Amino acid sequence: MTLIWSKACFQTETIFDRSSGGGSDMANVAAKREISSAESEELSREAKRAKGDNKNGEESGNEPEWKNILSTFTTSSVLSDSAREKIMFLHGKIAGDEAVVVLEKTPIREDSLAELFKDSKLRLDMRNDIYSSYRLQAPPHLNEIKTTVVCPATEKHVKKYRRQESFLVEETGDDYRSITLPYVQQQSLSLQWVYNILEKKAEAERVVYDDPDPEVGFVLLPDLKWDQKQVDDLYLIAIARQKDIKSLRDLSSEHLPLLHNIFHKGKAAILERYNLPASKLRVYLHYQPSYYHLHVHFTKLGHDAPGCGVERAHLLADVIQNLQADPQFYRTRTLWFPLRADDGLLGRFKEAGRL
Amino acid sequence: MTLIWSKACFQTETIFDRSSGGGSDMANVAAKREISSAESEELSREAKRAKGDNKNGEESGNEPEWKNILSTFTTSSVLSDSAREKIMFLHGKIAGDEAVVVLEKTPIREDSLAELFKDSKLRLDMRNDIYSSYRLQAPPHLNEIKTTVVCPATEKHVKKYRRQESFLVEETGDDYRSITLPYVQQQSLSLQWVYNILEKKAEAERVVYDDPDPEVGFVLLPDLKWDQKQVDDLYLIAIARQKDIKSLRDLSSEHLPLLHNIFHKGKAAILERYNLPASKLRVYLHYQPSYYHLHVHFTKLGHDAPGCGVERAHLLADVIQNLQADPQFYRTRTLWFPLRADDGLLGRFKEAGRL
Repeated sequence: MTLIWSKACFQTETIFDRSSGGGSDMANVAAKREISSAESEELSREAKRAKGDNKNGEESGNEPEWKNILSTFTTSSVLSDSAREKIMFLHGKIAGDEAVVVLEKTPIREDSLAELFKDSKLRLDMRNDIYSSYRLQAPPHLNEIKTTVVCPATEKHVKKYRRQESFLVEETGDDYRSITLPYVQQQSLSLQWVYNILEKKAEAERVVYDDPDPEVGFVLLPDLKWDQKQVDDLYLIAIARQKDIKSLRDLSSEHLPLLHNIFHKGKAAILERYNLPASKLRVYLHYQPSYYHLHVHFTKLGHDAPGCGVERAHLLADVIQNLQADPQFYRTRTLWFPLRADDGLLGRFKEAGRL
Repeated sequence: MTLIWSKACFQTETIFDRSSGGGSDMANVAAKREISSAESEELSREAKRAKGDNKNGEESGNEPEWKNILSTFTTSSVLSDSAREKIMFLHGKIAGDEAVVVLEKTPIREDSLAELFKDSKLRLDMRNDIYSSYRLQAPPHLNEIKTTVVCPATEKHVKKYRRQESFLVEETGDDYRSITLPYVQQQSLSLQWVYNILEKKAEAERVVYDDPDPEVGFVLLPDLKWDQKQVDDLYLIAIARQKDIKSLRDLSSEHLPLLHNIFHKGKAAILERYNLPASKLRVYLHYQPSYYHLHVHFTKLGHDAPGCGVERAHLLADVIQNLQADPQFYRTRTLWFPLRADDGLLGRFKEAGRL
């Protein structure tokens, strides 16, 4: 079950986005890890149902049909890759059908180390004083490559996996009102999934903390990127109950009680539930956000969460300090953020001659 | 030569830090990638000299001596690992000697894809509609594990690789003057390598741009973490010529001409040399910095450079805006930053009851 679930996660994480369609994610592999709740649940159920098939597949050894299919895979292009994460996204064809193939090396497993050292071949590359380096050739079953296939793939799949360049955009307060705000309003994408969470119509069993106050209240729940198996990559989201705050840009000093409440009660709830003190947390907002309903990210310090870079994240403690010093700070200041090449908002900035 | 160099880089990147000893790096694998210039050059030369040995090693196939040594490696603990980066740092013993072994899966190579698909075995794990996932077992020579050995290793090596928890520290302006500044002054670690660069006594051939003005001048050069082979992970450092600016905390509006100069001429030099426009750059300062002489980081947007997280990085554009709004901004505001558990400065904050 655990194995199946982690596979379903990988698949859904890399296929779907949880957003209101702003598309302002960074153009990297990690950014592909946002997911729609409904889609996730559906796929999780599908994956569990597929468990029987899976077992059959394992018991019968290699599946000749699919073995043949991948051995005839012809690569037409590398859509994206990461040398750091040892992952590659390929576009090509399998027996005439469009296909996307994702290859990702598996993490090194502590429980197979003894066998790995015993049964591998080593070739010396360099030796210098107390330092030496080798290429180690491991038995194949100890060094697998996770392979995901989408076939037949649509143009949408191909576009989704293609590396998108990001551009840093400079947005003055006037730019926000004349370019960004009209764009966001025109998109008017559904926030129904957010309201479902706030009204306990969905994901109620996942809620970690709920403050029902209509002014300063919020719901705290694990982000779907976090599998909740270990606190090392802890990631929760606090969603404000107030519905009229689109983003950082709408905040003024009148929202300080709300921000203080989320900051303090969120940290307290995480300490109580996960035994993780505030000094181990990175608490921040995104600008641009993925969806235009105020929410705050809580991630573990030291976990390289997607979107925690200085170009998109704003520490909540700093936001509070800035609003205390200047009630209109976020309505008047210039803000910088990355937009992907295919983001409609980037087009608007270009049209306005601001890029 | 290229192969040898990349190996030497890996080795030195994971062994040495380029810093004045502040030790405020984040406790992650990436943070181990800072390097002392002198040590780097020395090791690079050593690695080149070792090339003959290397060839001999390759030609004679496996080295029985070392093969035996690693096959008898006994792991005493996992010092740190990253499932995302597929890397693991181990502490153990080889024939009675203390040893550190680093295992890192190699990036997927585009030039071996055809052979990989043709000669691998596939096992189906899950199939669901157009999505399916597999475990792929590749021929060992197409799926090697980079292995670095330090033996005999000292306690210092072991400590260096051990995962260090980070703690987020809150520093008011008063905390800076009563805790941080005295600590930094007491450490008074050598900045000779910085002065060598400014005076062209070292690394002169690496300089990308040099503005000799004593007030607003700076030297721009590639960071040692960047191998300069592709702009995807571009990383340069601008080092101010003024010697009396320790960090962000020393900046006031009088430094605006210097900051503007670094910002504009740095971006122009990168456009000219690397054809990378300013909209593809993330330009920022660290607080705490690794060494207390003002320097600015230029990294490619979309490259997940170590230390670009919101908890440590400050966009230069934002720093300029803040100083324009309040000349004493960075002398009076509260700043947050992570410190590793073994950082002496963290001890001072604890002693002062500030953590």
